[in-house]
Amino acid sequence: MAAKPTLGIGLIGSGFMGKAHALGFATARRVFDLPFALDFAVLADVDAALAERAAQALGFRRATGNWRDLLDDPEVGVVDITTPNMLHREMALAAIATGKHVYCEKPLAPTAAAAREMTEAAEAAGVQTQIGFNYLKNPMVTLARDLIAGGEIGTIRSFRGVHAEDYMADAEAPWTWRLDPADGGGALADLGSHILATARHLAGPIASLTADVATAIGERPVAAGGVERRAVAVDDVARLFLRFANGATGSLEASWIATGRKMQHEWEIYGSEGAILFTQERFNELRLYSTRDRPGRRGFRTIFAGPEHEPYGAFCVAPGHQIGFNDLKAIEARDFLEAIAGGPAKGPDFREGYEVQKLVDLAYRSAHEGRWLEV
Amino acid sequence: MAAKPTLGIGLIGSGFMGKAHALGFATARRVFDLPFALDFAVLADVDAALAERAAQALGFRRATGNWRDLLDDPEVGVVDITTPNMLHREMALAAIATGKHVYCEKPLAPTAAAAREMTEAAEAAGVQTQIGFNYLKNPMVTLARDLIAGGEIGTIRSFRGVHAEDYMADAEAPWTWRLDPADGGGALADLGSHILATARHLAGPIASLTADVATAIGERPVAAGGVERRAVAVDDVARLFLRFANGATGSLEASWIATGRKMQHEWEIYGSEGAILFTQERFNELRLYSTRDRPGRRGFRTIFAGPEHEPYGAFCVAPGHQIGFNDLKAIEARDFLEAIAGGPAKGPDFREGYEVQKLVDLAYRSAHEGRWLEV
Amino acid sequence: MAAKPTLGIGLIGSGFMGKAHALGFATARRVFDLPFALDFAVLADVDAALAERAAQALGFRRATGNWRDLLDDPEVGVVDITTPNMLHREMALAAIATGKHVYCEKPLAPTAAAAREMTEAAEAAGVQTQIGFNYLKNPMVTLARDLIAGGEIGTIRSFRGVHAEDYMADAEAPWTWRLDPADGGGALADLGSHILATARHLAGPIASLTADVATAIGERPVAAGGVERRAVAVDDVARLFLRFANGATGSLEASWIATGRKMQHEWEIYGSEGAILFTQERFNELRLYSTRDRPGRRGFRTIFAGPEHEPYGAFCVAPGHQIGFNDLKAIEARDFLEAIAGGPAKGPDFREGYEVQKLVDLAYRSAHEGRWLEV
Amino acid sequence: MAAKPTLGIGLIGSGFMGKAHALGFATARRVFDLPFALDFAVLADVDAALAERAAQALGFRRATGNWRDLLDDPEVGVVDITTPNMLHREMALAAIATGKHVYCEKPLAPTAAAAREMTEAAEAAGVQTQIGFNYLKNPMVTLARDLIAGGEIGTIRSFRGVHAEDYMADAEAPWTWRLDPADGGGALADLGSHILATARHLAGPIASLTADVATAIGERPVAAGGVERRAVAVDDVARLFLRFANGATGSLEASWIATGRKMQHEWEIYGSEGAILFTQERFNELRLYSTRDRPGRRGFRTIFAGPEHEPYGAFCVAPGHQIGFNDLKAIEARDFLEAIAGGPAKGPDFREGYEVQKLVDLAYRSAHEGRWLEV
Repeated sequence: MAAKPTLGIGLIGSGFMGKAHALGFATARRVFDLPFALDFAVLADVDAALAERAAQALGFRRATGNWRDLLDDPEVGVVDITTPNMLHREMALAAIATGKHVYCEKPLAPTAAAAREMTEAAEAAGVQTQIGFNYLKNPMVTLARDLIAGGEIGTIRSFRGVHAEDYMADAEAPWTWRLDPADGGGALADLGSHILATARHLAGPIASLTADVATAIGERPVAAGGVERRAVAVDDVARLFLRFANGATGSLEASWIATGRKMQHEWEIYGSEGAILFTQERFNELRLYSTRDRPGRRGFRTIFAGPEHEPYGAFCVAPGHQIGFNDLKAIEARDFLEAIAGGPAKGPDFREGYEVQKLVDLAYRSAHEGRWLEV
Repeated sequence: MAAKPTLGIGLIGSGFMGKAHALGFATARRVFDLPFALDFAVLADVDAALAERAAQALGFRRATGNWRDLLDDPEVGVVDITTPNMLHREMALAAIATGKHVYCEKPLAPTAAAAREMTEAAEAAGVQTQIGFNYLKNPMVTLARDLIAGGEIGTIRSFRGVHAEDYMADAEAPWTWRLDPADGGGALADLGSHILATARHLAGPIASLTADVATAIGERPVAAGGVERRAVAVDDVARLFLRFANGATGSLEASWIATGRKMQHEWEIYGSEGAILFTQERFNELRLYSTRDRPGRRGFRTIFAGPEHEPYGAFCVAPGHQIGFNDLKAIEARDFLEAIAGGPAKGPDFREGYEVQKLVDLAYRSAHEGRWLEV
Repeated sequence: MAAKPTLGIGLIGSGFMGKAHALGFATARRVFDLPFALDFAVLADVDAALAERAAQALGFRRATGNWRDLLDDPEVGVVDITTPNMLHREMALAAIATGKHVYCEKPLAPTAAAAREMTEAAEAAGVQTQIGFNYLKNPMVTLARDLIAGGEIGTIRSFRGVHAEDYMADAEAPWTWRLDPADGGGALADLGSHILATARHLAGPIASLTADVATAIGERPVAAGGVERRAVAVDDVARLFLRFANGATGSLEASWIATGRKMQHEWEIYGSEGAILFTQERFNELRLYSTRDRPGRRGFRTIFAGPEHEPYGAFCVAPGHQIGFNDLKAIEARDFLEAIAGGPAKGPDFREGYEVQKLVDLAYRSAHEGRWLEV
Repeated sequence: MAAKPTLGIGLIGSGFMGKAHALGFATARRVFDLPFALDFAVLADVDAALAERAAQALGFRRATGNWRDLLDDPEVGVVDITTPNMLHREMALAAIATGKHVYCEKPLAPTAAAAREMTEAAEAAGVQTQIGFNYLKNPMVTLARDLIAGGEIGTIRSFRGVHAEDYMADAEAPWTWRLDPADGGGALADLGSHILATARHLAGPIASLTADVATAIGERPVAAGGVERRAVAVDDVARLFLRFANGATGSLEASWIATGRKMQHEWEIYGSEGAILFTQERFNELRLYSTRDRPGRRGFRTIFAGPEHEPYGAFCVAPGHQIGFNDLKAIEARDFLEAIAGGPAKGPDFREGYEVQKLVDLAYRSAHEGRWLEV
C-alpha cells in the first residue's frame, strides 16, 4: 500500500459551518478511502484567541487570527471558507491567486457578478472548487437523481420545492448581517439558494422564472431586547415560478418565518410514470411512487437509506440506522477531494454556485419588475 | 314535539356528486336535528331510465328525464344541481326564477360573468344558495378557522396551498368535457377552485394575484384506446402567488397530473405565534404548532377529530373513529337547511362561488398577460 | 327490473352503536345494490319516549319501549341488537326462537358459554347471524386478507396487534357497567375482542395462548365527581402471546388507559416475502412491503383506498377521498343481507363471535393460572 | 488554559461497531469539551494486516494482531471491546486486571454469570466501565427520561417496546455465530437486550417477567448458497410480559425476521397524564401527549431534536438538522470519559449490562418453563 499524498486543509471560520466542515473532513478520512492523507493544518478566525480555541477543539495543528496567513502556507492545499457571505469573494480570489483549491460555503457571493468573478478566476487558474449546498450529497438525493436519470418516473413534468425554517419568525429577533441587503438579500438568498440548487440538481437548468418577495416583519430591534428598531428591507418569504429547460414547470418557496418549521427543505417531483417526495426533516427517507406497480398495489413507498444507496454503507453497514447532518458534509468533502485527485468533478463547483446566484439575482429583479425573466 | 315542516329535495344528476349529495342528505337527517323533515322528492337525470334506476337506488320518490319538471313541482323546495359545470347556469337561473332554493356543485359556472348573473339573480329573488366546496365543512377545517379567529397562531403571515390529484396524469386518458376551455378551463378551474375557496375561508379575501399555467400533455386520444388525437388547450397545472387583504402573502398550486396523488388538498398557514398544517389525505387530523408551548416541548401536535370538534360528535361519540368524504356533504347539507330555516348563513353561498370564480378568471388572465392583477 | 323482496329491520338500542347501525343500513341501501328493499320497521329502546325520538331521528317507522314487541312482528325480518353485552343473550335467543335473523354487536356475550348457547341456537334454527366486529369490513383489511391469501407476503411468520384507547385513562372517570366483571371483563373483553377477531381474520385460528392482565386504576368514583369509591376488579390492560394453527406466533395488547390514543387498532404482519402494517387511526391506508421489489427500491408503500379495493368504489368513484367509520357498518350490513338472501356467508357470524369469546375467556383463565392454555 | 491530561484508547475490533466507536471518539473530541486529550493509541484486530489497514483508516497510531498487546501498554487507558459477544469476558477481565477502564459493546456476555463476573471484577478493581447500548444516549431519549422524571406524563402505567429488524428474515441467510446458542441466544439476546435496556432506562427496574420464544426458520444453509443445512436452535422472535418495580406493566418483542423493518426500536409509554412515543426509525423526533393541553387542542406533538435537548447543540446549533447513528456513539464516549475523569457516572456501566443480561437469561428460562419468574 503506497503512502497517500498529503493534503493540508486551511479552514477559515469556526462557527456553525466551520465546525460542520471540520467534522466532515474528520469523518471522511475515517469512513472513506480518500485519495489523500489529510492534514488539518491551520484554522483561521477573526482573532487569534478564538482561532486557537477552535483549532484545539476541532483538531487543527495551528491557528491564526489572520486568514491571509493561509495564502502562502505551502502546507495548505485547500482553503475552506465558512465565513459570512460578504467575505467569500475576497478570500476565494486570494486563495485562487495562490493556486489553492477552494471549498466555500453557500451562497457563493452576495451578487451574481461577484460569483461570476470568482468562478472565472478559479477556472482560469485551474483550481478545483466546491460550494457547500449541504443537501445535495445525501444518498437519498442521489437515489432520486438516479431514479430520474434511469427513467424510473418517466418524463419530469412538475417540481414543487420549499425551503422553510423559522429562525427569523420571532419579530423580536434582532438585526443581523443577514438582514443587510448589501449582503445578498433575505430568505431567498439564504435559504432559497438551497432549494434552487436542488431544483437544478434534480430537474436540470431553469430557462425562465418570475418571483414574488415579501417582508412580513417590517422592523427589528437593533439589539436583542432593545427598544431601538431598524427597518428591514430584505425578504422574509420569497416565491418563484419556474420553467425548466426540459419543458417541466415548477415553483419554489423560501421562508425564514415559517413558525414551527426547522428544516422544511422539501420537494416533490411528478413524472409521467411516477413521483418522488422528499423532506429534509426525514432525510434518510425517500418516497417513491411508480405506475409500474400493479393497480390496487400502488402507493408511495418509503425507502430508508441503506448500503444500496452509495455512500451510506461507508458510514454504517446496517440499513435504517441513519446518517446525520454533519455526515452529509463528509460526503461533500470526499467528492471534493476526489475531484482534486483527478477523479470525476461531481460538484457543485463555483460555476454551479454562480448559476444559482444568477437565479437569485434574477428572482429579485423579477419581483421588483413584476414580470417573467429569461435566465 | 311539534312536527317539523317538510322540505322537498329535487336532485339533478346522479353521478359522483349526485350520489354524494343524496348520501349527504340521507345521513344529515339521521345525525342532525334538522329544521325540516326531508322529502326525497324527485331525481332528474339525462334520461328517464337512468333517473329511475338512480331514484330507486338513492331513495327518491319519483324520477324524471327532464330536469325542468322540477321547476313547477310544489313538492320541491330545494333544487340541487350536480351536473357538469356548463349546465349550472341555466338550471340555477330557472330554479331561482321559480323561487326555489338552490344547492349547486362547484365551480359555480365556467365564467365569473355567469357566476355573477346567478348570484345576483339569487340575491334578488331572496332564495338561499349553497355551493359545494366539499372540504370547507370538515370539523378540522372549522377548528383551524377557530384557531385563527381566536388568535391562537397570532397574525397570519403566509399561506401555502395545493390541490393535486392524478386523474389526468395518464397521457392516454381520453378527452373529456373537462378539457374544453369553453367549460371553464383545466386544473385551476376544476381543482384550484377548491384550494382558492379554502384560502379565502381561512386567510380571508385576496387582494391581488399572479398566475402561471402549463399544459403538460399537449394532446389526448379523442376516445379511450383510439389513435385519433385532439390538442389540449387547458392547464394541467396552475400556480398562483397571492396577496391577501390582511397583508399576508401566499401561493397555491392546482394539478391533475400529480402522479400518485389522489387527494392532496393540502395547506400550511404560518402565523406570528404558531402554524397549522392540513392535508385532505388525512382529513380527520389537524397539525398545530404553538410558540406558547415551552421551549424544548414545542412541536406540531396531531389533533384527531373528536366530539370537541363540532359537528363530529353527531356522527360518532367516540374520538378518532373518523368521518368519511360523504359525511362532509352531510354537514354541508345541514348548514344549508339551517340557513333556509332562517338560521345563520354559514355559506359558502353563490356569492362566495362567484368570488372564487372571479379569482379563477383573473388567474387565467394574469397567466395570459404575465403580470399581477388586482382583484 | 323485478321488485325486490322487502326485509324489515327491528333495531334494539339507539346509543353509539344503534345509531351506527341505522346509518349503516341507510347508507347501504343507497350505495349497494342490495338483495332486499329495506324497511326500517321498528326501533326499540328502554322506554317508549326515548325510542320514539330515536325512531324519528334515525328514520324508523315505529317505536317501542319493549323489545319483545319485535318478536312477533311479521314485518321484522332482522333483529339488530346494539344493547350492552349482558343483554345480548336473552334478546338473541328470543329472536332466534321466532326464526328471525340476528345481527348483534360485539362481544357476543359476557361468557363463552353464553356465546355458545346463542351460536348453537342460531345454527339449529337455520337463521343467519352477524356480529359487529367493526374493523373487519374495511376495504383495506380485505386487501390485506387478499394479499395474504395470494401469497404476496409469503408465509406468515409473526403478528403483532394492539387495540388501545384512552376512554378509561382518567382515574376520575366513574364506574360503569363495563367495570362489572359479571359483564365479561375489562379492556380485553371490550377492546381485545376486536383485535382477536382481526388476528383470526388475517392469520387464522389460534392454537394456544397465554395472557397477563393488570388493573392500573384500582378504584373509581361510584359517580362522576363523587367521593365514594368502588374497587375495580377488571383489567385496564391485557396482553397475550399467541400461537396460530399455521405455525406463526404473535402477541396482542388491549388497553383502555392508553392516554392519547383514540383508536389504536393497529397490527403488523410479517411474512417470508413481505409485511403489512395497518392502523385504524388511518384506516383508509395500508402499508405493504415486498421483497419482490428490487434492492434499493424497497420500502413500505402506503396504499390509499380506491375503487380497486372493493367495495370502496360504491361509496366514492375517486380514490383517496376516504370512507368513514359509519361506512364500515354499511359494508357489514350489506354482507349480512347478502348472506340472508342466500349469498356467501362472509361473516363474522355468531360462531365467529363465540370463537373470539372463547379466546377471551381462555385468556382470563390463563392470566389467572399464569400458564399457557390450548384453545 | 491548562493542558488536558491525555487518555489513550485501545480499540479491539474494527467491524461495524469498531468503526462506530472510532467515529464516536473522533467526533466527541471535536464537538465536546472533553476532560482528556484523546490519544488514538492502538487498534487490535484478528490479524496484523487487517489491524494495520483499520488503524490507518480510523486514525489509530499503531496496530496489532494480538489484543493482549494492549494490556501492558502504558499508553492505553481505555480498552474498548467491539468483538463478538463470546470474546467479551476474557478481554474485559484481562483489561480490568491491568487496571484499565473498559468500554464494551453489548451484550456484555453470553450469560448473566459471565456478565456478573465481569461486573464484580470491574467494581473490585475500581475501574470505570461502559456498555454500548446505542440508543440510550439519544437526546430525545434523554428528553423522554426528563419528561418522566419531571412528572410531565404523570405516573407511568404501561410500556410497550419492540426491537425488530429483518437481517435474518431471508431463510437463505446462512449460519452465523449469532445462531449459536452457546453465544447467548438469538433475537432476544442480540436485539431484545437493547429494548430491555431502554425499558429499564425509562421505566425502571423490572420485578418479574414471562417470555415466549419462537424459531421461525428452522434450518439455515451452512454457507451462503450452499445445499448443506444446519438446524437453528435460537429464537427468531421473542416476546416478554413485564412487571416493573414501580407497579407499571408492559411488554416487549425482539425480532430479526421482521421483513421490511430496518430499525424498529420503538416504544410507547403511557402515563396518567400523558404519553410518549418513539421510534428509532426517526430518532431525532419524540412524540408527546399531555392531558394538560386544553380539550380540543390535544394531540401527540412531534418534537424535533434541537439545541434545547442536550447535547444536540454540540453537534449543530440549528434545530431539526439531525444527528446520525454514529453521533450517538460520540455522546456515549463523552459520558464515559467524563465518568473516568470523576464526573457523574451516567452509565450504562457493566452492572447495567449485567442487569440486562440477567433479564435475558431469565426470559429464556421463563420461555423454557412456561411461567412467570421473579427477577
